[in-house]
Amino acid sequence: MKLSFTKMHGAGNDFVVIDATRTPFLPTPELLARLTDRHFGVGCDQVLVIEPASTPDVDFDYRIYNSDGSESGQCGNGSRCFARFVHDNGLSGKDSIRVRTISSVLELRRVEGGLVRVNMGVPRLEPLEIPFNASPRSTLYELCLDNGTEVEFGTVNMGNPHAVIEVADVDSAAVSEIGQAVQRNRAFPESVNVGFLQIHDAGQVSLRVYERGAGETLACGSGACAAVVAGRLWGKLAESVDVRVRGGALKIEWQGEGQPVWMTGPAETVFSGEIEWPN
Amino acid sequence: MKLSFTKMHGAGNDFVVIDATRTPFLPTPELLARLTDRHFGVGCDQVLVIEPASTPDVDFDYRIYNSDGSESGQCGNGSRCFARFVHDNGLSGKDSIRVRTISSVLELRRVEGGLVRVNMGVPRLEPLEIPFNASPRSTLYELCLDNGTEVEFGTVNMGNPHAVIEVADVDSAAVSEIGQAVQRNRAFPESVNVGFLQIHDAGQVSLRVYERGAGETLACGSGACAAVVAGRLWGKLAESVDVRVRGGALKIEWQGEGQPVWMTGPAETVFSGEIEWPN
Repeated sequence: MKLSFTKMHGAGNDFVVIDATRTPFLPTPELLARLTDRHFGVGCDQVLVIEPASTPDVDFDYRIYNSDGSESGQCGNGSRCFARFVHDNGLSGKDSIRVRTISSVLELRRVEGGLVRVNMGVPRLEPLEIPFNASPRSTLYELCLDNGTEVEFGTVNMGNPHAVIEVADVDSAAVSEIGQAVQRNRAFPESVNVGFLQIHDAGQVSLRVYERGAGETLACGSGACAAVVAGRLWGKLAESVDVRVRGGALKIEWQGEGQPVWMTGPAETVFSGEIEWPN
Repeated sequence: MKLSFTKMHGAGNDFVVIDATRTPFLPTPELLARLTDRHFGVGCDQVLVIEPASTPDVDFDYRIYNSDGSESGQCGNGSRCFARFVHDNGLSGKDSIRVRTISSVLELRRVEGGLVRVNMGVPRLEPLEIPFNASPRSTLYELCLDNGTEVEFGTVNMGNPHAVIEVADVDSAAVSEIGQAVQRNRAFPESVNVGFLQIHDAGQVSLRVYERGAGETLACGSGACAAVVAGRLWGKLAESVDVRVRGGALKIEWQGEGQPVWMTGPAETVFSGEIEWPN
């Protein structure tokens, strides 16, 4: 049997997208390995599946599979690709769609120039919600790492935990070394994604993110949101910020505490393909 | 315009294969970058192009493009994929085909079970031919690396220079550290691919290769040939040897000095695709 798929990326975070609105997609660990493996398979960070809505309050169900077969409840860069695929393939004529993941309902809006705007949810800031062992809540914490370095950072949960460190120059930051040292610190019981934020001015920043399990990635959507939230709580950023990540550019908007973060960014189709399965 | 391609791999060394027998393939640096990039494009080690024969003594011309736009004259793992594509797509009914690369003519034979047997040429063993600054010629040289370690190795040129080091356990070998130290030694004026060879018995070995420019790879066809040549010159290997590399298994045959090395191994189709170009 042939399985059709589309390869897409959002700022370098790349996906195999499968339209399961008419034919069910039944993933086995072997098939997911084949779709995600970059040498023996198609190659991508995650597999995104578009399914018919399981409840009337959403337009589609949205499944996000990792290479190890586990499912994610959120992927901002993937959500933009999801929305663009739905539009380009005529699956919905709406400019705004609601989709259900395994953990929440997301709102995805098509904007001009192939860009998509995604409601990334309300950031959680209490130490217990990160989770981060500290008290009281602050916008800037200090930690002595096991290599002796002292670091200052903010913490934000965007569905996953983030620590955000301001740096003078993101290109020369010791991303891998400091990222690993922060991640293994016991103050973060579920580890943490570590962002390195260079603030050019109130509306423009550069960011590199060292992710849990993945190391440095080309684009981390939730990391960009967390960085802007932290920078705004420090009083250094405007409501709308252009964030340059290694794989491209994202726009992050946040009005302030209690409000959702909106992320706008690109979603590109790379190619379409067919794979024999089982082969 | 849509460009059709097939993704294949040979023991994990992976390729985008393009049939240019009817429509010419005109690669630009941008298109090659798009085809080779693993996040923003299709993703592969090299792009293989099947062209009509430019002279009557061969069946096809065979172009091998690297991601930086340069061309290679030899890729053993790619040659097997080339032969399998030609057969599977009915471009030739022959079981043995001759193909011209930019540097030589190769003979490719289809054997049972989807395997392909490739004549990898006659190994060159004189120090000047490696090139390696040593005299007289020997089967085992000794070098003191800049980290103070002493290593013993054989040298073989299989179209590219190889140093082969015997190790007790290939899994725990310091492949990256020793590989880099050998590569930057001035005794190898064009640098060198470094193979780490564990001999289980005269017919079975395991191999890891640290390649020039690429680091450790899943499968290095010429490295497997070089390792068996070196091991045979040490008197430790039989005429036919099964070589386990990270990406799979290869069979290497060599009768002895002056004779060509034959490599037999798998060639697998992963998927077919279409990409819009220019997009």
